[in-house]
Amino acid sequence: MKAEIISIGTELLLGHIVNTNASFLSQKLAEAGIDVYRQATVGDNVERLCNSIKTSLRRSDMVIMSGGLGPTIDDVTIEAISILTGRPLVLNKAILKDLKHYFKLKKVRCPKESIRQAYIPKGVRWIRNSVGTAPGLIIECDGKTIICLPGPPRELEPMFTVDIIPYIKKIAESAWSIRSRSIKIVGLAESQVNAAVRDLLELKPPTTVGIYASLGVVQLKIMAKAKDEKSAALAINRIERKIRLRLKEHIFGCDDQTLEGAVGRLLLKKKVTIATAESCTGGLISNRLTNVSGSSGYFMMGTVTYSNASKAATLDVPKSLIDKYGAISSQVALKMAKGIKRLASSNIGLSTTGIAGPGGGTKTKPVGLVYIAFVTGKKALVREFRFRGTREEIKFQASQAALDIIRVHI
Amino acid sequence: MKAEIISIGTELLLGHIVNTNASFLSQKLAEAGIDVYRQATVGDNVERLCNSIKTSLRRSDMVIMSGGLGPTIDDVTIEAISILTGRPLVLNKAILKDLKHYFKLKKVRCPKESIRQAYIPKGVRWIRNSVGTAPGLIIECDGKTIICLPGPPRELEPMFTVDIIPYIKKIAESAWSIRSRSIKIVGLAESQVNAAVRDLLELKPPTTVGIYASLGVVQLKIMAKAKDEKSAALAINRIERKIRLRLKEHIFGCDDQTLEGAVGRLLLKKKVTIATAESCTGGLISNRLTNVSGSSGYFMMGTVTYSNASKAATLDVPKSLIDKYGAISSQVALKMAKGIKRLASSNIGLSTTGIAGPGGGTKTKPVGLVYIAFVTGKKALVREFRFRGTREEIKFQASQAALDIIRVHI
Repeated sequence: MKAEIISIGTELLLGHIVNTNASFLSQKLAEAGIDVYRQATVGDNVERLCNSIKTSLRRSDMVIMSGGLGPTIDDVTIEAISILTGRPLVLNKAILKDLKHYFKLKKVRCPKESIRQAYIPKGVRWIRNSVGTAPGLIIECDGKTIICLPGPPRELEPMFTVDIIPYIKKIAESAWSIRSRSIKIVGLAESQVNAAVRDLLELKPPTTVGIYASLGVVQLKIMAKAKDEKSAALAINRIERKIRLRLKEHIFGCDDQTLEGAVGRLLLKKKVTIATAESCTGGLISNRLTNVSGSSGYFMMGTVTYSNASKAATLDVPKSLIDKYGAISSQVALKMAKGIKRLASSNIGLSTTGIAGPGGGTKTKPVGLVYIAFVTGKKALVREFRFRGTREEIKFQASQAALDIIRVHI
Repeated sequence: MKAEIISIGTELLLGHIVNTNASFLSQKLAEAGIDVYRQATVGDNVERLCNSIKTSLRRSDMVIMSGGLGPTIDDVTIEAISILTGRPLVLNKAILKDLKHYFKLKKVRCPKESIRQAYIPKGVRWIRNSVGTAPGLIIECDGKTIICLPGPPRELEPMFTVDIIPYIKKIAESAWSIRSRSIKIVGLAESQVNAAVRDLLELKPPTTVGIYASLGVVQLKIMAKAKDEKSAALAINRIERKIRLRLKEHIFGCDDQTLEGAVGRLLLKKKVTIATAESCTGGLISNRLTNVSGSSGYFMMGTVTYSNASKAATLDVPKSLIDKYGAISSQVALKMAKGIKRLASSNIGLSTTGIAGPGGGTKTKPVGLVYIAFVTGKKALVREFRFRGTREEIKFQASQAALDIIRVHI
């Protein structure tokens, strides 16, 4: 069973809003075992919309539309459905009653234009909107299905989850269960991960693996389709084991787990506390560590020692050391990590110093040069990195490298 | 001149990622006076991609594609262009040199698969990727234009802005000039801004105003279409003056200006320095302040005093004060701000203490309760807030309120 998604709205074609409906609907459909074949966005124009729907119905079994159901003359979805199916628009008294009730609750008179929303193509099924005024529609037509949903995500999302997904599952009589899992990897480039799992990336359905890279993280997404949930989960586990054998400690988590969350769980488990002394990352590492609920159990304190004076005053980094090696040096990084560990009486001291740019770089110390130091009672190490990108990207990559150093060296 | 956008990637059809490229490209094209007629998303399938491009070229003058330029066998954009235009793929030595240089800087051996990215259709124009490895392409074909861009927004956005937009403007010789400006507002709810500018939101083309709200910020977007750039700019200025008269100091900037940037400019202008003592915001405020290039000119230092011991050790907040009023109190906030001002020898001390949740709330001190203190040589103030949302949303709103307090009270 194949579906297509059509998003309607000139505001989308002008780029005024980001189309989150298309990704929401695609994800829910994938989970229900329905393949999304294509997404399209068209403006508020009845002729172009009719053409789009016709083309999609030729290729696919189901068309899911969002938007164009509002009360203004710009909203043409209902008109398009009426033209395509040859069904005249008729007043639906139940919808009208809902509308009047909606405005009564808001203590506003029902605007004349809104009455338009109570007219729907004769004989089609409608879905109550629990949040707004535009009802959803389900139209069955020559063995295919058209579904119309309101555009605002807060109206579309509950309607789709509560009313449409059960309907789709029934008509799809989906014999398939689909499961997925994202394996998250840090410290390797996309090309390195690609080289390690090339054979898996070439797998064909029912079990496939995809690779997705974003700044500082590579994800391998395993998808499995099977007759039941258990078989799908087994297929996922089988591939995950292979990936784990190959990428080992570079894997920090699955699905919506974060690197800072993984670090937090490890710190809690090993009962060790941490404190940070940041220069170029400017507080990003402590911010990420404290985004994790319960981080007060292991995060003692952080400092952002931007000026040389504050490095000396807070962390006891001698002025002579800065004069000799410069503030951006492995020596200063190490001293900062030792200083914060002592000040906070923590088990671990972590520090960063570097040049986030865009200014401040020199030939020997270019923008993107970052030193990260990690100190415990037993070990002390410093690593040098050369990142590329904007100021914020360099800060992010440095924070990612620092969190990974904690994870690996705890 | 009409354009269509084709986004390529099975991950989009699976809903794994939200398509921000389509809105980015649409917005930039609208600003350049180019109408976007349609957006489509197709999977990593060369036959379907070829069909999509052919259909779009029949209807429109220009097709702009994003994605499918990576090094893996899933990436089929180049292959599709080669098939459609009948141009064979040939090794481009300049691109190969760039690739090798890229990996050399990263201190990684250039992977075999990446070499694939140096093969492009014979005789087409290519655009250097300043951030990643996939070059962009411009193909002219039977009087129409095809543009291929890499999928990651951080690669696509600079390439489109710097190289493609000037190219498009030249070939479009657009008769219309379109200008837009976003006015950014802090400290007011969307409904309050809406009430203040309701008449402007009803304006019809050629000059319109839209309202867009996100966490902690409301934006008013003015768009004007005119025969020349000057008239469009005048129309924008006329509306902006009206908005500024009504919303006054709640406006902190325009377009891509940030609140932290506005605060930074003010601090530089008034030649005052700042230091932060954060508890519940965990370093987010210092991170945002130091995201601004040149912030070392006014940001002295920050501390993240998560534990009570660190509040005492670093900021001289007496244990007795914490025992009496609790760590989440206006008294402790004030003492923290004074402590960091003294420690850093800065002109301003700023502090936050609160409960970001989801745990740790009580009936009298619920999740979302945040105190922010602001201290200078002449004044000292504390404000109490009650935010709602997730842990990260509460942290963000607190950082937004803190930056706004600096902005207003400097």
